[in-house]
Parts: sequence; structure tokens; C-alpha cells
Amino acid sequence: MGVTDFFDPDGIAVIGASKTEGKLGNDAMTNIRTYDGDVYPVNPSSSGEVYGYEFVDSVHDVDADLALCCVPSPVVPEVLEECGEAGIGAAVIFAGGFAEVDEDGQELEDEVVRIGEEYDMTILGPNTAGYCIPHLDLYGSFVPQIREVETGNVALLAQSGGVGVTSSFQLDREEYGVSAMFGLGNRANTGFAELIPVLDDDPNTDAIALHIEGTDDIDNFIEVCREAETPIVAYKAGSEDLSEFVQSHTGAPIQDRETYEEALADEGVVFVSSVTELLDASRAIADTPTPDGKNVGVVTAQAGPGIIISDELDERGAKFPDLEAETQQRVDDLLQGITYTENPVDTGRPLPEFGQVIDAVGRDDNVDMVIVYEIYEDSLGYPVEELEALAENVDKPIIFTVAGPAEGFEEERLQMEAAGIPTFRAPERGAHAVAALIDSVDEDA
Amino acid sequence: MGVTDFFDPDGIAVIGASKTEGKLGNDAMTNIRTYDGDVYPVNPSSSGEVYGYEFVDSVHDVDADLALCCVPSPVVPEVLEECGEAGIGAAVIFAGGFAEVDEDGQELEDEVVRIGEEYDMTILGPNTAGYCIPHLDLYGSFVPQIREVETGNVALLAQSGGVGVTSSFQLDREEYGVSAMFGLGNRANTGFAELIPVLDDDPNTDAIALHIEGTDDIDNFIEVCREAETPIVAYKAGSEDLSEFVQSHTGAPIQDRETYEEALADEGVVFVSSVTELLDASRAIADTPTPDGKNVGVVTAQAGPGIIISDELDERGAKFPDLEAETQQRVDDLLQGITYTENPVDTGRPLPEFGQVIDAVGRDDNVDMVIVYEIYEDSLGYPVEELEALAENVDKPIIFTVAGPAEGFEEERLQMEAAGIPTFRAPERGAHAVAALIDSVDEDA
Repeated sequence: MGVTDFFDPDGIAVIGASKTEGKLGNDAMTNIRTYDGDVYPVNPSSSGEVYGYEFVDSVHDVDADLALCCVPSPVVPEVLEECGEAGIGAAVIFAGGFAEVDEDGQELEDEVVRIGEEYDMTILGPNTAGYCIPHLDLYGSFVPQIREVETGNVALLAQSGGVGVTSSFQLDREEYGVSAMFGLGNRANTGFAELIPVLDDDPNTDAIALHIEGTDDIDNFIEVCREAETPIVAYKAGSEDLSEFVQSHTGAPIQDRETYEEALADEGVVFVSSVTELLDASRAIADTPTPDGKNVGVVTAQAGPGIIISDELDERGAKFPDLEAETQQRVDDLLQGITYTENPVDTGRPLPEFGQVIDAVGRDDNVDMVIVYEIYEDSLGYPVEELEALAENVDKPIIFTVAGPAEGFEEERLQMEAAGIPTFRAPERGAHAVAALIDSVDEDA
Repeated sequence: MGVTDFFDPDGIAVIGASKTEGKLGNDAMTNIRTYDGDVYPVNPSSSGEVYGYEFVDSVHDVDADLALCCVPSPVVPEVLEECGEAGIGAAVIFAGGFAEVDEDGQELEDEVVRIGEEYDMTILGPNTAGYCIPHLDLYGSFVPQIREVETGNVALLAQSGGVGVTSSFQLDREEYGVSAMFGLGNRANTGFAELIPVLDDDPNTDAIALHIEGTDDIDNFIEVCREAETPIVAYKAGSEDLSEFVQSHTGAPIQDRETYEEALADEGVVFVSSVTELLDASRAIADTPTPDGKNVGVVTAQAGPGIIISDELDERGAKFPDLEAETQQRVDDLLQGITYTENPVDTGRPLPEFGQVIDAVGRDDNVDMVIVYEIYEDSLGYPVEELEALAENVDKPIIFTVAGPAEGFEEERLQMEAAGIPTFRAPERGAHAVAALIDSVDEDA
């Protein structure tokens, strides 16, 4: 019983399941279909089947340890009480209308918390879009098409289910996935402090991405971040100016960004300032080795974007070390007559030697990580073979910023991804990913 | 003769044209093929044809007023002199190896400037990837596949040809295009001050996007921005810390961002802080009416992303006005029992009434512009009809932030674009686009 039931449920009850398309209890059923285990649509006023599963009248008639509650808020305490009696260890409550609304909602939520305590039941929500674990084909959410989200190695833990869902879709649109996505909602008894340790232990999760609005138990939050071995990246939304709107959303206390940034940065959490940065930084950190220092080698085939990248990195505390004499000689030999062979190295145009230049800079002992920029040219392609060999031979991050026509570089981009080289589609996105790697460097190590 | 020859050449000479694939003189020929006019490959050491055009020995044998010079830097002055003698009014010089390199390069560039003056010849470059004008099928560049870039209503004027190219491709990947793209390079005699007035007069250009590294003639720059009627958005790259690298690139003087921002903001130029923001802001400004004030109506189907958007806008000076009594009544009627019906309006989930809620907020006289956020659901779709009607009936910007599965919303997104409603694919991108609209408001008006 407990949080792990979300990951490995032995039977799932969908309470308030419905045959009617567009209803929340129907959407939840369409998503849970992919799960390879027993699913029980529970609804005393329905009979027959929905998506091949036979309706049952009561949660007492099922053999399940996870419940997806698709009922409106006034009915939730009663339903939850029955779940507890039936021995269900974990429940997801989708409905809104609790602490985020008014006093009556707060009372309803207090009741939910009390029932959770009485039956030792782990409750996700209320007021959440749910969760998903793609590699288990487990989509415990009412959001249509969430089951299109594929498996990745970043876990999303979002205070807002909407942000968790939109982030999952944003990764999906760029051909990535998630190891897990949890929307916390009102956090009756399951919040950051409960889920971070579980995701930290999850072998499929290589980085944890947090979306924070505000939380009461900031001390526990800090404590679990301190103890986590998996890298954590965080984005804090909701400023003090918008207090009324934020409060109305999840009942979260109003806390400013700085409070979190100061407290969590000490525990090694990397802070970012947008959803896209959260996803990009998490991917970069999940997919590459931890750099030994902040020394960045920049290799660009076009100087203008190289300047933009270097500029952003400079502002974020990167160092651009001189190359070792041997590296410099190798680069000079490769780029005879070329504009700028020192770090940042600018080849002026894509060249057949571009991969060897990256290799030279990547193997330089002065360089802790490499960022590459190149506009794709059909006739040359990207230097995938050299990059694969480099990634295999050096224990440092290599980040590749792609650019070019819509269809051009996709195949080679995916090859680079497979080789552990994260790719990004705009100069500032590559730079922000490297900035996150810089922030992840443990200065005391 | 002059800058307009770039837009309406009467015959194009490609000097240093080549049959050999991968050579710059061949790449330029592949791109220029689409042009509906006379093209002359000029190369005394080649004979026969390239892509169906017959080689000629000398620029004296052609009837052209634009030359694309695909020869290496040492030969450029000689070639340019011949172009002048042959009466060619405009030339593009692709080669690097001029003022950006060393003293000798500076002398070579001085010679280029002198020849330009002697023959009254407009010179784009040297050290540029060239330019393109998709609606004329005119791609004067050596960059492979640049001709895949389609027609749009934003003109890109980039100090770095590489940034011009990568920005064009970035727009292209998201199904947009450009009205024109010019990479300035070393600006022998054609820079921002010469091209902005021409783009301002261009009926196909609704916004001008600038990428700035640094320029000597900042007074002229400010002057043309002041006189332009077309909205201008600018991004300044190249900080003082990176001076050597920047200098080596275009020989641009080192100037900080603040210098430009202060001077140009007074002339109504909107400043942004990344390439993606430059493109998004330009699209938003090109496609929507100028707002009367900074009052933003926010309508979101999911509160979490709505908070992120409102948060970003709050930091950028947006105001969130109360809705008029009549609007509030209409919204309350539509959203009975819903979380938050005041501005920002949060419907909690996509609903059939969502389009009517947007309509109510959009027609409110307190609201100068509207931003919408909604995760796409297949069964509901996006409220395209309501949005089309609203866009037709109110003279204010409507911005739609899309989210959802990879393939889901594309058709409806394009319908919204066609109705003059710019769409963006991440919460912060929608917010930044609206922030640019806020910055475009003339406070003295």
C-alpha cells in the first residue's frame, strides 16, 4: 500500500466509469485500456461493458489496489470511504471543487485527507489530470490522447496537472517521452516530498523535472531534494502579484521564486525560467555525464549563431578555456586559412572536416563539455560517426544544436540522440541546456 | 541601380559558377534556378551548361544588373571592377577573408568599398550567406535548400547571414515563411540603414525582424527606424565579454545591448532577448492589429499554464483589467460552478462553451488584446469558428497558445493562422509574443 501502488497496481478500479463519450469517466476508460492488468469500471447505474470491460456495481466487488475516481467533488468522500473499506491502497481524484474554491471545498478536502489517514490510503489530487507511466502502458488520466506520450528517461512532477500534461505533449511533439508524469493538484497527502524519493529510486528515471507553484511543507521538500541521487531540475511559477489567481487554482500558498531557488540550489537542484527550459535542461542532464567543471568548448559552423550561444553561456557563468597546444595544432591543421580556430572555434561553413574538429575539441582535457552548432547541408550531412565515437570515448556532455530545413536532419538527429548526444532546435535552446549542465556542476566536488 | 536591384533584377550573373557539386558556385546555381528571368553562369574555365544555363566567359557578355560573386576573396576586387564596367548595379559577395580576418583583409575590403563607390554599385557582403525573396522565387544564396523557405510577411534583416538562414529555416519548420531575408555580413556599403527603408516600402512585409551584432553608423540606424512605418523588432547579440570572437566574425564594433535598446526603444522598436522571441514577436506584430493599450484578457482551459502565461506577462508590464459587468455576467452564465470566471478566466477544462468565453472576453471594451491557452482534445477540437468571427469583428490582437499531441491540432492551428490569429506552441512563447505586443503600444498615442 502506498505510493508504489501508482507504479505497480494489482488491479485498477475506475469509479464513475461511463459509456458516454466526452464524459470524464469515459475518457479515463479509453486511457486505461492499454494497461496490461485487471481493470474494473465501477458504476451502479451502468450495466454491460465499456471497451470490453464489464461494469461492476461496487468497489467491494473488485480485486484492485488502485482507484481512479471520476466522480464529482460532493461524492468523493463517500467513494473514497468505500475504497478504504475495500482495501484499496491508492486513489487518484480528478475532480476540482475542493480547497482551491472556497470554505466548503476546504471542508470537503479536509474530509478527503482524514479518510486517507484513516485507511492509510495514498491520494493523488484532488484537482489533478492524473499521471502516466508510458513504459508500463499505464495512463491514469482523463486527458484524451495522453496515451500517445511515449517512454523517455525524464520524470515530470508538476504541481499543475495541466502543466504536466502540456509538458508531456511538448516532449512528445519533439520525439521524446517521459519515464513518468505526475500532476499533483491539491496534494491531499501526496506531494513533492512523497513522490521525489520514489522517482529517485525508479531505474527508468535519469532526471526529475519539477513544476512548482507553492507548497506548505518546504522543509520536507528540501530534505528529499538533498537526499535524492537523481538530478533534479525545477521551474517555479506563480508570482506574488497573481496571488488570488494562483490561490484559486491549487490553494497553494504564495511564495516567491527566490525562496525556492535559494533553498533548493544549495541541494544541487538546477533552476530554470520556462517550461521549455525545464524540459531541455532535464533532457540534457538525463542523457549526459555530469561535467567536471564549467569549461565549455564551442564548435560552430556559422559564427553568428555561435556568438549567440557563447553570449548566453557567458551570461550564465561558462568559461571558454584555451585549447591545449596539441588540440590547437590539430584544429589549425584541419582548418587552414579559416577565420577563427580558437575556442569558440568557427569553421565559417560546414566542412567535411567538421566532425574531426569537434573530436579534437571534445578530447581536449581543458574542456569539460562541448556544444556544437551547424546548419544542416544535405550533401555533407551531420558528422554522426565521429560524434558517436567521441561520445563513446570521452566522459563529458556533448550537446548538438541543429538547424536547417524542415525535413532535412531528422534521421541524423535521432542517431545522435541514440548515441547520448542531446539535440536542440534553436541557438538559445542549446545554450540554455548547456547552462543547466554548468549549474549542475558541484563546485565543492 | 541600387538596393532595389536585389528585389527586381533584370538578369543575374553568377560569377564563379561551377558544375561541381558541393562547390559554392554550384550551390548558388542550384538555388538561383527557380528565378523566372535570365541567369548567366560566368566562368572562363568552364564550358557547356550547368542546370540548363550556358556558361559565358565574362560578365561583359551578359545582360544582367545583379551579380552573385562566388569567387574567393583575393579575386573579388578584380571581379567587382568588371561588374562595374559591365554596368551591373548590385552584387552579392559571399566570400569571407575580409575585414573580419586581419589587416590584409581590411585592405581588400577597403578596395571593395572603393569600387562600389566608383561604379555606384550596391554590395551585399562580403562574408554573407546572401539573401532570398521567396515570393519572387529568388534565392541569392549558396546555402543548400534555402529555396525550401516559403513566403511569409516577416522580413529578416540579420547582421549574420548564418542567423538569417537559421531563422528562416526555424520559421519554415513551423510552417511559416519570410517576405525577404538579407544576411548583411561585413556591410561594405549596404547595412541596416540602406535596407530598412526598402523593406519598409515593401508591400509584402508587415514586420521587420533585426539581428544586430554591432554597427558604426548607429545614428543612421536610429534615423531609419524612426522613419519606418512598418513595425520593427530587434535582437542584439554579442556582448562585450566576447569582443575578440565577435570582431573576428564581422568586424563589428563591440557595443552593448543597452546602447541599442535605449536608443531604438525610443523609436518604437520592440526589443527581445532570443532568436525564437524575435521570430515569434515579429509574427505576432505582423499578423495582428496594434493594440490600444496594455490590458490583456487571459482565457485558459487549464489553470497551471494560465498562471505561467499570466506570470510572464505580469513581469512584462501587462495589466489584467476587470471585465465589464455585462461580460462578467455572460462568462458566469457560460461557466456555472467553474473555478475562476474573472480575468484571467480559467474554465478548468476544455468545454463546448470555450469559444463563447473567448468571444465574451475579446469583445470586452476593457480588454486591448486576448491570449488563449488550451490543451487540444480530439472530441472538442479548437473553437475555430468562434475565433474567426471574433477576429473579424474586433480590431485587437488574439493570440492562441496551442498544446497537445503531436498530430492533433495542426489543421485547426493553420485555420486560426489564416484568420489572423497567431499560434504558439509553448506557454512562454505565447506570453512573450503578447509581451512584444505590449511593448509595441505607443504610450504617447
